[in-house]
Amino acid sequence: MASVRIRALLFDVFGTLVDWRGSIAGQLETFGNERGIAYAFVDAWRGEYVPSMDAVRNGSRAWANLDTLHGESFDRLAERFALPPLSADERRWAVWRWHELEPWPEVPAALERLHERYVLATLSNGNVELLIDLARHAKLRFDTIFSAEIFRHYKPDRQTYLGAAALLGCAPAETMLVAAHESDLRAAAGNGLRTAFVSRPAEYGPRSTSNGVMPEGFDAAVRSLDALAELEF
Amino acid sequence: MASVRIRALLFDVFGTLVDWRGSIAGQLETFGNERGIAYAFVDAWRGEYVPSMDAVRNGSRAWANLDTLHGESFDRLAERFALPPLSADERRWAVWRWHELEPWPEVPAALERLHERYVLATLSNGNVELLIDLARHAKLRFDTIFSAEIFRHYKPDRQTYLGAAALLGCAPAETMLVAAHESDLRAAAGNGLRTAFVSRPAEYGPRSTSNGVMPEGFDAAVRSLDALAELEF
Repeated sequence: MASVRIRALLFDVFGTLVDWRGSIAGQLETFGNERGIAYAFVDAWRGEYVPSMDAVRNGSRAWANLDTLHGESFDRLAERFALPPLSADERRWAVWRWHELEPWPEVPAALERLHERYVLATLSNGNVELLIDLARHAKLRFDTIFSAEIFRHYKPDRQTYLGAAALLGCAPAETMLVAAHESDLRAAAGNGLRTAFVSRPAEYGPRSTSNGVMPEGFDAAVRSLDALAELEF
Repeated sequence: MASVRIRALLFDVFGTLVDWRGSIAGQLETFGNERGIAYAFVDAWRGEYVPSMDAVRNGSRAWANLDTLHGESFDRLAERFALPPLSADERRWAVWRWHELEPWPEVPAALERLHERYVLATLSNGNVELLIDLARHAKLRFDTIFSAEIFRHYKPDRQTYLGAAALLGCAPAETMLVAAHESDLRAAAGNGLRTAFVSRPAEYGPRSTSNGVMPEGFDAAVRSLDALAELEF
């Protein structure tokens, strides 16, 4: 297995490459202060993420992209948090904050380095428009955008991992998923991809349950993309 | 119509951005001279392009990506041109020449300029792996790769034009197809996209039937991407 050369790196995005929590909270600062949106709202919003996708994954609703799911969960939370009424433009502006997230500091330059040796693509549950906006905003270099939206399946459905490898003309073992989330990596490994864990202890802010111990069982476990760029696969 | 702002440019690739004929012939020079492959072979290979996709488009065969179609047409032509037997590696090398085409001279820098103002994507019948290899080889900047392979339809099927706009979160009229081929542009316009014709009189070499007259009926008609970058949409 280790003798197969890695040709492409596939990147989880939210949490792995960008700081969604700090970015959303920061972007909502003035808007949110005036409307009662704070970190608790952002955390609750992220809390809706997996359940909203699960409804698509288990077939209890038809395909809907992440902008749609983010909008629906925003509306539920607006009610729960008793936000004042928002105009359509204000609502859209808030939901679109997920298109303008800030990268973890080393990410843009490290992707440039990695791009010299590997094909780089996203493999994210974000929709294509969101990911393109985000990559342009954060200056993240990818050769292409792979999104759940292209496969009409959300991670961790196997169609995402295997679909990305197939479009690259790669065997699964010629690709490596880079992610900060063990469940995503385990699903990728279960489908034959190689795996790199990136530790992002600040992803969930002070609520973080990270104990700083690096997980075992992945092909690599690193604390930054710079460290990943030092390795040979 | 003209008041809708263009958000994204979609690029045809073969002929529009890269010189497939000169590149393939050049790449095959030594290999080809030893094996009887010359310009006539390259022209015949390109001649198989539309008929091979039409078999997929009209449903007379199942989906096959362009690498597969290029390989099959190579095999037919190898017999017609009575080439000596090739090893599997030699055959693959020849078919993969479509992954390493040279850009028309102004293209790489012009894409960098256009990237500052628009989302840029391919919209090509080439498969994803081919297009990524080609973009890396020719240093072409795109935000993402849209390929017939993603939509499981070849241009000029409407699913390609409308599928690309939808993934970008754009109305068709917010996107513009840039292509050197009037049939591609007419199909795009018929689906509501805006259109820019780029003249590439050298695409077919001395066989070219171009008379230098620019066609009418498109939103723009230019002789280079530099000229396109001077326009406002």
